[in-house]
Parts: sequence; structure tokens; C-alpha cells
Amino acid sequence: MKYQREILKQVSGYVPGEQPKPGERIIKLNTNENPYPPSPRVMEAIAAVGADGLRRYPDPNAVELRKTAAELYGFAGPEWVIAGNGSDELLAMIIRTFVDPGETVWSAYPTYSLYDTLVKLHGAKYASVDLDREFRMTPEFFTRQGRVFFLARPNAPSGVSSPKAEVEKLCKSFPGVVVIDEAYADFDEDDCMDFPRRFENAIVTRTFSKSYSLCGLRAGLAFARPEIIAELMKTKDSYNMSAVSQAGATAALRDQAHMRANRDKVIATRARLTRALREMGFTVPDSKGNYVLARWGGRPDTKGIFTGLRERKIVVRYFDARNLTDALRISIGTDAETDTLLAAIREIVK
Amino acid sequence: MKYQREILKQVSGYVPGEQPKPGERIIKLNTNENPYPPSPRVMEAIAAVGADGLRRYPDPNAVELRKTAAELYGFAGPEWVIAGNGSDELLAMIIRTFVDPGETVWSAYPTYSLYDTLVKLHGAKYASVDLDREFRMTPEFFTRQGRVFFLARPNAPSGVSSPKAEVEKLCKSFPGVVVIDEAYADFDEDDCMDFPRRFENAIVTRTFSKSYSLCGLRAGLAFARPEIIAELMKTKDSYNMSAVSQAGATAALRDQAHMRANRDKVIATRARLTRALREMGFTVPDSKGNYVLARWGGRPDTKGIFTGLRERKIVVRYFDARNLTDALRISIGTDAETDTLLAAIREIVK
Repeated sequence: MKYQREILKQVSGYVPGEQPKPGERIIKLNTNENPYPPSPRVMEAIAAVGADGLRRYPDPNAVELRKTAAELYGFAGPEWVIAGNGSDELLAMIIRTFVDPGETVWSAYPTYSLYDTLVKLHGAKYASVDLDREFRMTPEFFTRQGRVFFLARPNAPSGVSSPKAEVEKLCKSFPGVVVIDEAYADFDEDDCMDFPRRFENAIVTRTFSKSYSLCGLRAGLAFARPEIIAELMKTKDSYNMSAVSQAGATAALRDQAHMRANRDKVIATRARLTRALREMGFTVPDSKGNYVLARWGGRPDTKGIFTGLRERKIVVRYFDARNLTDALRISIGTDAETDTLLAAIREIVK
Repeated sequence: MKYQREILKQVSGYVPGEQPKPGERIIKLNTNENPYPPSPRVMEAIAAVGADGLRRYPDPNAVELRKTAAELYGFAGPEWVIAGNGSDELLAMIIRTFVDPGETVWSAYPTYSLYDTLVKLHGAKYASVDLDREFRMTPEFFTRQGRVFFLARPNAPSGVSSPKAEVEKLCKSFPGVVVIDEAYADFDEDDCMDFPRRFENAIVTRTFSKSYSLCGLRAGLAFARPEIIAELMKTKDSYNMSAVSQAGATAALRDQAHMRANRDKVIATRARLTRALREMGFTVPDSKGNYVLARWGGRPDTKGIFTGLRERKIVVRYFDARNLTDALRISIGTDAETDTLLAAIREIVK
């Protein structure tokens, strides 16, 4: 294709997890969606946008949403927050804002594979440091040089959350911007929301897709010092968030009780699933996300279990990737879905 | 700011048109919004997304919307179409897909100022060819070399629509991709939707913000040959359009009667406003958009008229830019808003 850029010849783009066809009855445990519905206030807020809110341009600066987020998390004002069309957009914006093509961006291995894709699309170099067998950071993490370091906490697909002291060490040792991707932090026991105040190079990102059950709305937030946020505001699409996403996300933040109730159910099911899988002989690290990574050394292999589950209309995530072929990532579903899953696995592994 | 990229030091970002504060009663004729509400089917479709549609990831490929658009415009299938979070996102994606940093992107002057901003944010060079005093293309347009040429048709802020034969000449002479930005084409008498079939380098972009009254939803489309679309699909954010935007935009396309009725009202008011302004002594090129550019050589000057209107709570667009300081761009409002506007201008110019 003669109009193509050279750098895009090597890039294939991100491959999102499988989505069921409309009408297909499936237990979907492959993309870490929340099994419980979003707050009813979100649907009310979306309906309230109405004809006039749709007709007019949305607030390009999403001030109401950013103010609500700043208050909720104890930041001085909206200048500490930026809102995006999903946290994926914010990750892409961070690369465009802080990385010149040709420069290096770091992350852990294994982790969220979108970082790699976004860095390559930008014409920058992606590099990663291996986590150890228990998915812990190694001394290697604290000697890297580059413009941006992406650290998912809790990490995916392991569910392991690096100790805050280690993340602090990373912020101090890394010369560029450290992005702490807290997509799953609401399912964790602590978070790094104090880091933007403490470190000039820390950005914390959050999504509405997981704990708020709003994958379909596309909304995310990033928190950092006002100088960092101002720089990101320059590079964002001027009207990057629809009036609907702004209204829905604001309503979601204002209903913390709803989010916490769903979160608590997910955490309880996660504990039960982890226990049951371990009893069957899987190795399962303690997960702080809404998913578990289940390692398996028995028969059939994980590919076989994956296929067996697929035949029973249960979809989990199998990774054809280094150090992960012996593992399945399973999203936390409802209790009933989890019972069906466990029964199916028992059947498959005999 | 030590983490900043060198290229961002010179960029200030796009400045969107002024938005009224909540509750402020104003006649808003500055951002080319449609004065009439979107189709009621859009609101129904948005409500129908529901808790489950919000909880799940949206279709990353927006297949339903792209199929609907392909059918409506007579393309063979969805592989001729890509959907974006507003056509602004598509313009940015086109630059990222077809332009290496340092290379040149062309456009006309004057035109939509976002092109300039997006090109600079990408670290590429922005260059423009002056339109003549009647906003027509000159022979200079057909000798340019570069990766992308943005041509808004109808153009903003003039409302002038270049003859299709000239756009064809541009597609043939320009060695890179020619983007025909048809944000306002529904208000025009013809369009270039046949160009993607005829020219391998033509991309036509459309928005839902103008004729469909959906600025707040953020939805846009681009049409081009499948090879071009495939390349754009690589660089787009994986879930760039919310389930809500996809559903709303699809419903809007399916209610052509609603769009046409609003469009016809806007065109009738445009004719009346043009006539009245000319009678007062303004020079107004025939506009094919939902706005007119009114040039003025009298007293007070256009800045004075702009300020006088602002005092009367009417906002139009004044451009502090070369060749445009003697002009105001006025969006087409309702008939009542237009009457109020005309009375106010008469008062201001005595």
C-alpha cells in the first residue's frame, strides 16, 4: 500500500478479547468485565443528557467530571485530573505527550499487551523487564532509562499487586514519567493515589470499565501534578469525551456505595474461586484484580482446558505468550457462573 | 517542565469555540451546532443500550454502524468505512497513519484550524495554499507535494464549496492522501462520496455533529478504499467508540427523513439570512454549510459588531486571523434566533 508509513508495516494493531455474537448465550470470563450492572444513576444521567445535550458540543474540558474525581480522591482541584475516552485513550495520550519517536518506553513482562502496541504505533521502542516466577519486581526494574514506564498495579494477567514501597522506588529511580495503571485498584487493598502529590513524575490512571461496570461507556481518568495534566490537555482531542460519557462517569463516581457493593461481591467470589482452583491442583497467585491467573501442570494442558470450556460455552483467556502458556486468566463472574465454570473444569480435568 | 517533548513547546493546542456557562441564556451562533434536535430514535437507541450494553465492551469494530453507513452511501461493505469518536478523531488518525513526523501536510487557507494543530502535535510540518479573495482554489493547489492534503468541502469559514472537477484535479495531482472533509456536505447540493471508488488516494470524512444534531455524542465516519481503511483500523484506539455512540449514530443514519427535514429548514434560513445581510451591506459568499461568512467594510468594524452582539447575549465567531478580521462567521440558528440576530445587527450598525 503506497501511502503507508514504514513503521506501520511491522505493527498489527491490538487484538481485543473475543466478543460473543449477538444472541449467543455464553459465560464470558475473558475480558474482565464486571458481572454486575452499573449504578442505576448512570442510566438516569445518560437519559438526562437529552436532545439538547446531544445537539450541543460537550464540555471540552470535562470540568464537572474532573471536579467530582478530584474531590473524591482528595486532590486540590480539577487541574490534577484529566478525563479520557477510556483509560486506553489516556495511555496513548501519555505516549504522544512524553515520548519522541525512537525513544524507549518500559514496562514489566508479562503485562497489559496494549502498552507494546501503542508504543510501536507511535514509532517508539518498547522494552520490558521480566517479573520473577511469582510476578514480583526484580532489582532490574530500578536501573532502567527511558521516557515512560508503565506499571499496572494490580498487574494483569497475574493479579499480583507490587508493594507500594517498590513502586515508590521505581518513581525515584526512573528518569521519566512513571504511569501506575490502576485499572483494577478498586479490587485491591490499597492504591497509589497519594503518588501524584509525592512524586513529580507519577501518573495514576483509572478506568470506569472494571469496578464501575462501564466498559461500554468508554471513560477513564488520569491523576498527576498540574504541570503534567496541562501538557496532556494540549495533546488530547478537543472534544474527546461525549456528553453522555461525561454525565455517566460523573454519576458513577457519585454512587460509591453501588460500586463498593459490587466490588465486595467480586472479591468474595474471587476468594472462593481461588480456593477451589487450588484444591483442584492449580497454582493461583493471590489476585487483587477482578480475575485470577490459574497455572496448571496436569492433563489436558491449559490449551485443552480452554478448548473444553469453549465447547461448553464458557470463554476464558488463553495467552499464546512466553511464560504464560501454562496459565488461564479467568475473570470473576457471578457466583452462578463461577459454579458452572468450576463444574466444567472438574469435568475436563477428570 | 522537564518531561516535555521539544515539539510540544511550540504547540498551544486547539482552542474550541466559547461554550455558555450552565444556565446562561444566550443565542449561540458560534460553533455551527444544528438548532434543531436530533431524531427521537437516537434517544431511544441510547436508552436501549441499557445496563448490559454499558457493562460489556462495545464492538471494537463498530460493524453495525459501518454496515449501515456503507448501505446508505452505496459502498460494497463495511470494509469501505471506519467509525470514529467524532470526525476530529478520524482526522488525527489519518495523520498518524499516513504521515511520518517531519513530513508535510497541506491544506487551504483559510480553513478549519484543527488541521494545523493536529499536524503540529504529530511533529509534522503544516503548510497551506491561499484561496483567492472569493475563496476559490488557485493553480497553486495542483502543484503541491506531501503526504496528506486536507480539503474541507464545503470549506469553513467561507461556506464555499469547491467545484467537484477541481477536487478531482487535486486527487490526480497530489502524490499523497487527499482528505475531503465533508462535515457540512448534507447542507450542500452535491458531495464527493463517489471519490473513494474513483481515486485510490481519496478519503471522505463525515460527522454526526452538524446535519444530525449530535455534537454531544461524538461520532464520525470516514470512507475510503479497503486498503486505506485497513491501515486506519490498525492505528485506532481499540475501543474508540462507546456502545452509546455506536447505537445513537446508527439510529441517526436510519432516520434520513428527520435529518433532511432539519437540513431543509437550515437551508431556508441560510438563504433568508444571506439576503438580509447583503441588503445591509455585508458581502456574503454563497454558503453551502450551516453558517455564513459575512464581510463588512463599515462602522463599527466587525470586532465592534461582535462585541455589540455579545452584549446582547448573541455569540458569533470573530477570527483574529489573516484575511478574516473583516468578517464574522454566523451559524444558522432557528428563524426566531435569526430575527433577533438581524435586529441586533441593524441596531449596532445604525
